[in-house]
Amino acid sequence: MTRILGVDPGLTRLGVGVIDHSRGSEVSLVMVEVFTTPADQELSARLLSLQGQVREVFDRYQPARVSLERVFAQHNVRTVMGTAQVSGIVLALAAERGIPVSHRTPSEVKAAVTGYGNAKKPQVGQMVKNILKLKQVPKPADAADALALAITEAWRGTAVAGEDRPETPAQRAWREALKDRRT
Amino acid sequence: MTRILGVDPGLTRLGVGVIDHSRGSEVSLVMVEVFTTPADQELSARLLSLQGQVREVFDRYQPARVSLERVFAQHNVRTVMGTAQVSGIVLALAAERGIPVSHRTPSEVKAAVTGYGNAKKPQVGQMVKNILKLKQVPKPADAADALALAITEAWRGTAVAGEDRPETPAQRAWREALKDRRT
Repeated sequence: MTRILGVDPGLTRLGVGVIDHSRGSEVSLVMVEVFTTPADQELSARLLSLQGQVREVFDRYQPARVSLERVFAQHNVRTVMGTAQVSGIVLALAAERGIPVSHRTPSEVKAAVTGYGNAKKPQVGQMVKNILKLKQVPKPADAADALALAITEAWRGTAVAGEDRPETPAQRAWREALKDRRT
Repeated sequence: MTRILGVDPGLTRLGVGVIDHSRGSEVSLVMVEVFTTPADQELSARLLSLQGQVREVFDRYQPARVSLERVFAQHNVRTVMGTAQVSGIVLALAAERGIPVSHRTPSEVKAAVTGYGNAKKPQVGQMVKNILKLKQVPKPADAADALALAITEAWRGTAVAGEDRPETPAQRAWREALKDRRT
Protein backbone atom coordinates (compact mmCIF):
# COMPACT_ATOMS: atom_id res chain seq x y z
CA MET A 1 0.00 0.00 0.00
CA THR A 2 1.24 3.44 -0.90
CA ARG A 3 0.11 6.65 0.75
CA ILE A 4 -0.10 9.60 -1.62
CA LEU A 5 -0.51 13.32 -0.92
CA GLY A 6 -2.07 15.48 -3.64
CA VAL A 7 -1.53 19.24 -3.41
CA ASP A 8 -3.41 21.91 -5.34
CA PRO A 9 -1.24 24.92 -4.47
CA GLY A 10 -2.58 28.42 -3.96
CA LEU A 11 -2.17 31.39 -1.67
CA THR A 12 -5.87 32.01 -1.01
CA ARG A 13 -6.88 28.35 -1.03
CA LEU A 14 -4.51 25.41 -0.84
CA GLY A 15 -6.06 21.96 -1.27
CA VAL A 16 -4.48 18.87 0.26
CA GLY A 17 -5.79 15.34 -0.11
CA VAL A 18 -4.31 12.07 1.12
CA ILE A 19 -5.26 8.66 -0.25
CA ASP A 20 -4.07 5.11 0.19
CA HIS A 21 -3.38 3.14 -2.95
CA SER A 22 -3.45 -0.63 -2.72
CA ARG A 23 -3.12 -3.29 -5.39
CA GLY A 24 -4.42 -2.35 -8.86
CA SER A 25 -6.55 0.74 -9.10
CA GLU A 26 -7.95 0.55 -5.58
CA VAL A 27 -7.73 3.84 -3.70
CA SER A 28 -9.30 5.08 -0.48
CA LEU A 29 -9.67 8.45 1.20
CA VAL A 30 -7.49 9.23 4.20
CA MET A 31 -8.07 12.98 4.56
CA VAL A 32 -8.89 16.07 2.57
CA GLU A 33 -8.69 19.70 3.59
CA VAL A 34 -8.43 23.19 2.16
CA PHE A 35 -6.21 25.70 3.95
CA THR A 36 -6.95 29.37 3.42
CA THR A 37 -5.20 32.66 4.12
CA PRO A 38 -6.78 36.12 4.05
CA ALA A 39 -5.91 38.28 1.04
CA ASP A 40 -5.20 41.31 3.25
CA GLN A 41 -2.51 39.49 5.23
CA GLU A 42 1.18 40.12 4.57
CA LEU A 43 2.47 37.77 1.85
CA SER A 44 5.25 36.29 3.97
CA ALA A 45 2.84 35.61 6.84
CA ARG A 46 0.46 33.83 4.45
CA LEU A 47 3.28 31.62 3.17
CA LEU A 48 4.46 30.82 6.69
CA SER A 49 0.95 29.87 7.76
CA LEU A 50 0.47 27.54 4.78
CA GLN A 51 3.92 26.05 5.34
CA GLY A 52 3.00 25.18 8.92
CA GLN A 53 -0.28 23.56 7.90
CA VAL A 54 1.24 21.52 5.08
CA ARG A 55 4.12 20.48 7.32
CA GLU A 56 1.59 19.12 9.78
CA VAL A 57 -0.03 17.06 7.01
CA PHE A 58 3.38 15.60 6.08
CA ASP A 59 4.20 14.77 9.68
CA ARG A 60 0.81 13.36 10.58
CA TYR A 61 0.02 11.33 7.45
CA GLN A 62 3.55 10.42 6.31
CA PRO A 63 2.89 10.20 2.56
CA ALA A 64 5.31 8.14 0.47
CA ARG A 65 4.75 10.31 -2.61
CA VAL A 66 3.52 13.77 -3.48
CA SER A 67 1.55 14.80 -6.55
CA LEU A 68 1.69 18.56 -7.11
CA GLU A 69 -0.15 20.60 -9.70
CA ARG A 70 2.27 22.09 -12.17
CA VAL A 71 2.12 25.88 -12.23
CA PHE A 72 1.84 27.74 -15.50
CA ALA A 73 2.52 31.40 -16.09
CA GLN A 74 -0.20 31.77 -18.66
CA HIS A 75 -2.96 32.88 -16.28
CA ASN A 76 -3.31 35.88 -14.00
CA VAL A 77 0.21 37.02 -13.13
CA ARG A 78 -0.43 37.85 -9.49
CA THR A 79 -2.16 34.54 -8.84
CA VAL A 80 0.56 32.57 -10.59
CA MET A 81 3.35 34.17 -8.58
CA GLY A 82 1.60 33.33 -5.31
CA THR A 83 0.92 29.80 -6.49
CA ALA A 84 4.56 29.32 -7.49
CA GLN A 85 5.71 30.63 -4.11
CA VAL A 86 3.44 28.16 -2.33
CA SER A 87 4.58 25.30 -4.55
CA GLY A 88 8.22 26.14 -3.74
CA ILE A 89 7.43 25.73 -0.07
CA VAL A 90 5.66 22.41 -0.60
CA LEU A 91 8.58 21.14 -2.69
CA ALA A 92 11.08 22.03 0.03
CA LEU A 93 8.97 20.25 2.65
CA ALA A 94 8.90 17.11 0.49
CA ALA A 95 12.63 17.25 -0.26
CA GLU A 96 13.41 17.70 3.44
CA ARG A 97 11.76 14.32 4.02
CA GLY A 98 13.17 12.67 0.90
CA ILE A 99 9.70 12.23 -0.59
CA PRO A 100 9.54 12.18 -4.41
CA VAL A 101 7.24 14.70 -6.09
CA SER A 102 5.44 14.34 -9.41
CA HIS A 103 4.34 17.46 -11.25
CA ARG A 104 1.02 16.98 -13.01
CA THR A 105 -0.72 19.31 -15.42
CA PRO A 106 -4.45 19.99 -14.97
CA SER A 107 -5.24 18.25 -18.27
CA GLU A 108 -3.22 15.19 -17.26
CA VAL A 109 -5.25 14.99 -14.05
CA LYS A 110 -8.56 15.45 -15.85
CA ALA A 111 -7.62 12.76 -18.36
CA ALA A 112 -6.63 10.36 -15.57
CA VAL A 113 -9.83 10.66 -13.55
CA THR A 114 -12.46 11.40 -16.24
CA GLY A 115 -10.79 10.00 -19.35
CA TYR A 116 -11.02 13.40 -20.98
CA GLY A 117 -8.33 16.14 -20.75
CA ASN A 118 -10.79 18.98 -21.27
CA ALA A 119 -13.26 17.83 -18.62
CA LYS A 120 -15.02 20.52 -16.58
CA LYS A 121 -14.52 21.00 -12.84
CA PRO A 122 -17.87 19.39 -11.84
CA GLN A 123 -16.99 16.23 -13.78
CA VAL A 124 -13.70 15.97 -11.92
CA GLY A 125 -15.49 16.36 -8.59
CA GLN A 126 -18.07 13.77 -9.54
CA MET A 127 -15.44 11.24 -10.59
CA VAL A 128 -13.43 11.82 -7.42
CA LYS A 129 -16.59 11.09 -5.44
CA ASN A 130 -17.24 7.89 -7.40
CA ILE A 131 -13.64 6.64 -7.36
CA LEU A 132 -13.23 7.15 -3.61
CA LYS A 133 -16.82 6.05 -2.87
CA LEU A 134 -17.63 9.28 -1.04
CA LYS A 135 -21.13 10.36 -0.08
CA GLN A 136 -20.66 13.84 -1.52
CA VAL A 137 -18.47 15.68 -3.98
CA PRO A 138 -15.61 17.23 -1.96
CA LYS A 139 -15.97 21.02 -1.72
CA PRO A 140 -14.56 23.50 -2.57
CA ALA A 141 -13.10 22.53 -5.95
CA ASP A 142 -9.57 22.74 -4.49
CA ALA A 143 -10.38 19.77 -2.26
CA ALA A 144 -11.57 17.64 -5.19
CA ASP A 145 -8.58 18.77 -7.26
CA ALA A 146 -6.11 17.75 -4.56
CA LEU A 147 -7.68 14.28 -4.41
CA ALA A 148 -7.72 14.05 -8.21
CA LEU A 149 -3.99 14.83 -8.19
CA ALA A 150 -3.38 12.03 -5.69
CA ILE A 151 -5.50 9.58 -7.71
CA THR A 152 -3.58 10.48 -10.87
CA GLU A 153 -0.33 9.70 -9.10
CA ALA A 154 -1.72 6.36 -7.95
CA TRP A 155 -2.88 5.34 -11.41
CA ARG A 156 -0.25 6.89 -13.60
CA GLY A 157 2.55 6.37 -11.07
CA THR A 158 5.58 6.24 -10.75
CA ALA A 159 7.74 9.20 -9.97
CA VAL A 160 10.42 6.86 -8.74
CA ALA A 161 11.46 3.64 -10.36
CA GLY A 162 11.65 0.39 -8.50
CA GLU A 163 8.69 0.95 -6.25
CA ASP A 164 5.66 -1.37 -6.10
CA ARG A 165 6.16 -3.01 -9.48
CA PRO A 166 8.65 -2.96 -12.34
CA GLU A 167 8.10 -0.26 -14.95
CA THR A 168 7.09 -1.14 -18.47
CA PRO A 169 9.29 0.38 -21.20
CA ALA A 170 6.46 2.81 -22.04
CA GLN A 171 6.18 3.92 -18.42
CA ARG A 172 9.89 4.42 -18.27
CA ALA A 173 9.89 6.58 -21.41
CA TRP A 174 7.02 8.61 -19.97
CA ARG A 175 8.82 9.09 -16.67
CA GLU A 176 12.01 10.20 -18.43
CA ALA A 177 10.05 12.68 -20.54
CA LEU A 178 8.44 14.08 -17.39
CA LYS A 179 11.79 14.36 -15.68
CA ASP A 180 13.17 16.45 -18.52
CA ARG A 181 10.24 18.83 -18.23
CA ARG A 182 10.47 19.12 -14.50
CA THR A 183 13.00 21.93 -14.00
CA MET B 1 22.49 50.56 13.27
CA THR B 2 20.31 48.30 11.17
CA ARG B 3 21.44 45.10 9.52
CA ILE B 4 19.85 44.47 6.14
CA LEU B 5 19.81 41.35 3.96
CA GLY B 6 19.33 41.81 0.22
CA VAL B 7 18.22 38.76 -1.78
CA ASP B 8 18.30 38.39 -5.56
CA PRO B 9 16.30 35.17 -5.89
CA GLY B 10 17.00 32.51 -8.50
CA LEU B 11 17.19 28.75 -8.84
CA THR B 12 20.50 28.60 -10.71
CA ARG B 13 22.09 31.55 -8.89
CA LEU B 14 20.77 33.13 -5.70
CA GLY B 15 22.56 36.29 -4.54
CA VAL B 16 22.62 37.29 -0.88
CA GLY B 17 24.24 40.42 0.50
CA VAL B 18 24.26 41.73 4.06
CA ILE B 19 25.08 45.34 4.96
CA ASP B 20 25.00 47.44 8.09
CA HIS B 21 23.25 50.78 7.85
CA SER B 22 24.16 53.44 10.38
CA ARG B 23 23.06 57.06 10.69
CA GLY B 24 22.28 58.83 7.42
CA SER B 25 23.34 57.13 4.24
CA GLU B 26 26.30 55.29 5.70
CA VAL B 27 26.40 51.62 4.80
CA SER B 28 29.08 48.95 5.11
CA LEU B 29 29.54 45.45 3.75
CA VAL B 30 29.05 42.51 6.10
CA MET B 31 28.97 39.62 3.61
CA VAL B 32 28.05 38.76 0.07
CA GLU B 33 27.67 35.38 -1.57
CA VAL B 34 26.04 33.65 -4.50
CA PHE B 35 24.54 30.21 -3.94
CA THR B 36 24.16 27.95 -6.96
CA THR B 37 22.37 24.72 -7.78
CA PRO B 38 22.97 22.50 -10.83
CA ALA B 39 20.28 22.64 -13.53
CA ASP B 40 20.20 18.84 -13.80
CA GLN B 41 19.29 18.39 -10.14
CA GLU B 42 15.70 17.59 -9.08
CA LEU B 43 13.73 20.83 -8.53
CA SER B 44 12.77 20.02 -4.95
CA ALA B 45 16.37 19.17 -4.05
CA ARG B 46 17.54 22.50 -5.49
CA LEU B 47 14.97 24.38 -3.43
CA LEU B 48 15.90 22.49 -0.28
CA SER B 49 19.58 23.22 -0.80
CA LEU B 50 18.96 26.95 -1.30
CA GLN B 51 16.63 27.01 1.70
CA GLY B 52 19.38 25.55 3.89
CA GLN B 53 21.96 28.07 2.70
CA VAL B 54 19.67 31.08 3.10
CA ARG B 55 18.57 29.83 6.53
CA GLU B 56 22.21 29.78 7.57
CA VAL B 57 22.59 33.41 6.47
CA PHE B 58 19.56 34.40 8.54
CA ASP B 59 20.83 32.55 11.59
CA ARG B 60 24.41 33.71 11.34
CA TYR B 61 23.92 37.37 10.41
CA GLN B 62 20.56 38.06 12.06
CA PRO B 63 19.28 40.75 9.71
CA ALA B 64 16.61 43.14 10.98
CA ARG B 65 15.13 43.61 7.53
CA VAL B 66 15.03 41.86 4.19
CA SER B 67 14.96 43.44 0.74
CA LEU B 68 13.79 40.99 -1.91
CA GLU B 69 13.64 41.50 -5.65
CA ARG B 70 10.06 41.50 -6.84
CA VAL B 71 9.41 38.76 -9.36
CA PHE B 72 7.61 39.54 -12.60
CA ALA B 73 6.02 37.04 -14.94
CA GLN B 74 6.95 38.97 -18.04
CA HIS B 75 10.24 37.19 -18.71
CA ASN B 76 11.08 33.58 -19.49
CA VAL B 77 8.33 31.47 -17.96
CA ARG B 78 10.53 28.64 -16.71
CA THR B 79 12.97 31.02 -15.06
CA VAL B 80 10.20 33.04 -13.46
CA MET B 81 8.52 30.00 -11.91
CA GLY B 82 11.79 28.90 -10.33
CA THR B 83 12.49 32.41 -9.11
CA ALA B 84 9.03 32.67 -7.56
CA GLN B 85 9.48 29.31 -5.84
CA VAL B 86 12.79 30.45 -4.37
CA SER B 87 11.28 33.76 -3.26
CA GLY B 88 8.46 31.89 -1.50
CA ILE B 89 11.04 30.00 0.50
CA VAL B 90 12.94 33.16 1.43
CA LEU B 91 9.68 34.85 2.48
CA ALA B 92 8.75 31.95 4.75
CA LEU B 93 12.21 32.01 6.37
CA ALA B 94 11.82 35.75 7.07
CA ALA B 95 8.27 35.37 8.41
CA GLU B 96 9.37 32.51 10.68
CA ARG B 97 11.72 34.98 12.34
CA GLY B 98 9.30 37.93 12.28
CA ILE B 99 11.58 39.91 9.96
CA PRO B 100 9.82 42.43 7.67
CA VAL B 101 10.41 42.08 3.93
CA SER B 102 10.34 44.83 1.32
CA HIS B 103 9.71 43.92 -2.29
CA ARG B 104 11.74 46.07 -4.70
CA THR B 105 11.54 46.24 -8.45
CA PRO B 106 14.77 46.20 -10.48
CA SER B 107 14.15 49.76 -11.70
CA GLU B 108 13.56 50.96 -8.14
CA VAL B 109 16.91 49.46 -7.14
CA LYS B 110 18.71 50.95 -10.14
CA ALA B 111 17.21 54.35 -9.41
CA ALA B 112 18.25 54.16 -5.76
CA VAL B 113 21.90 53.29 -6.36
CA THR B 114 22.62 54.98 -9.71
CA GLY B 115 19.96 57.71 -9.81
CA TYR B 116 18.64 56.24 -13.04
CA GLY B 117 15.95 53.53 -13.32
CA ASN B 118 17.19 52.28 -16.69
CA ALA B 119 20.83 51.94 -15.63
CA LYS B 120 22.77 49.00 -17.04
CA LYS B 121 24.13 46.12 -14.90
CA PRO B 122 27.77 47.34 -14.96
CA GLN B 123 26.71 50.76 -13.63
CA VAL B 124 24.90 49.10 -10.73
CA GLY B 125 27.98 47.02 -9.93
CA GLN B 126 30.22 50.09 -10.13
CA MET B 127 27.99 52.10 -7.80
CA VAL B 128 27.75 49.22 -5.30
CA LYS B 129 31.55 49.13 -5.27
CA ASN B 130 31.76 52.90 -4.68
CA ILE B 131 29.01 53.07 -2.07
CA LEU B 132 30.41 50.21 0.00
CA LYS B 133 34.04 51.28 -0.63
CA LEU B 134 34.99 47.88 -2.05
CA LYS B 135 38.21 47.17 -3.93
CA GLN B 136 36.39 45.41 -6.76
CA VAL B 137 32.94 45.19 -8.29
CA PRO B 138 31.22 42.17 -6.68
CA LYS B 139 30.90 39.27 -9.14
CA PRO B 140 28.79 37.69 -10.52
CA ALA B 141 26.06 40.26 -11.15
CA ASP B 142 23.76 38.48 -8.67
CA ALA B 143 26.16 39.41 -5.86
CA ALA B 144 26.13 43.11 -6.82
CA ASP B 145 22.34 43.00 -7.25
CA ALA B 146 21.82 41.52 -3.79
CA LEU B 147 23.91 44.32 -2.26
CA ALA B 148 22.10 46.93 -4.36
CA LEU B 149 18.80 45.59 -2.99
CA ALA B 150 20.11 45.95 0.57
CA ILE B 151 21.38 49.49 -0.11
CA THR B 152 18.00 50.44 -1.58
CA GLU B 153 16.29 49.24 1.57
CA ALA B 154 18.71 51.27 3.70
CA TRP B 155 18.18 54.47 1.75
CA ARG B 156 14.56 54.17 0.78
CA GLY B 157 13.61 52.39 3.99
CA THR B 158 11.31 51.75 5.86
CA ALA B 159 9.29 48.62 5.58
CA VAL B 160 8.25 49.03 9.19
CA ALA B 161 7.27 52.26 10.87
CA GLY B 162 8.74 53.37 14.16
CA GLU B 163 12.24 52.09 13.60
CA ASP B 164 15.33 54.32 13.65
CA ARG B 165 13.52 57.66 13.15
CA PRO B 166 10.01 58.97 12.80
CA GLU B 167 8.57 58.86 9.30
CA THR B 168 7.76 62.01 7.39
CA PRO B 169 4.23 62.18 5.92
CA ALA B 170 5.70 61.56 2.45
CA GLN B 171 7.55 58.50 3.66
CA ARG B 172 4.39 57.20 5.26
CA ALA B 173 2.40 57.66 2.05
CA TRP B 174 5.15 55.86 0.13
CA ARG B 175 5.18 52.99 2.60
CA GLU B 176 1.41 52.64 2.45
CA ALA B 177 1.50 52.62 -1.34
CA LEU B 178 4.15 49.91 -1.26
CA LYS B 179 2.15 47.88 1.21
CA ASP B 180 -0.86 47.90 -1.09
CA ARG B 181 1.26 46.57 -3.91
CA ARG B 182 2.86 43.91 -1.83
CA THR B 183 0.44 40.97 -2.14
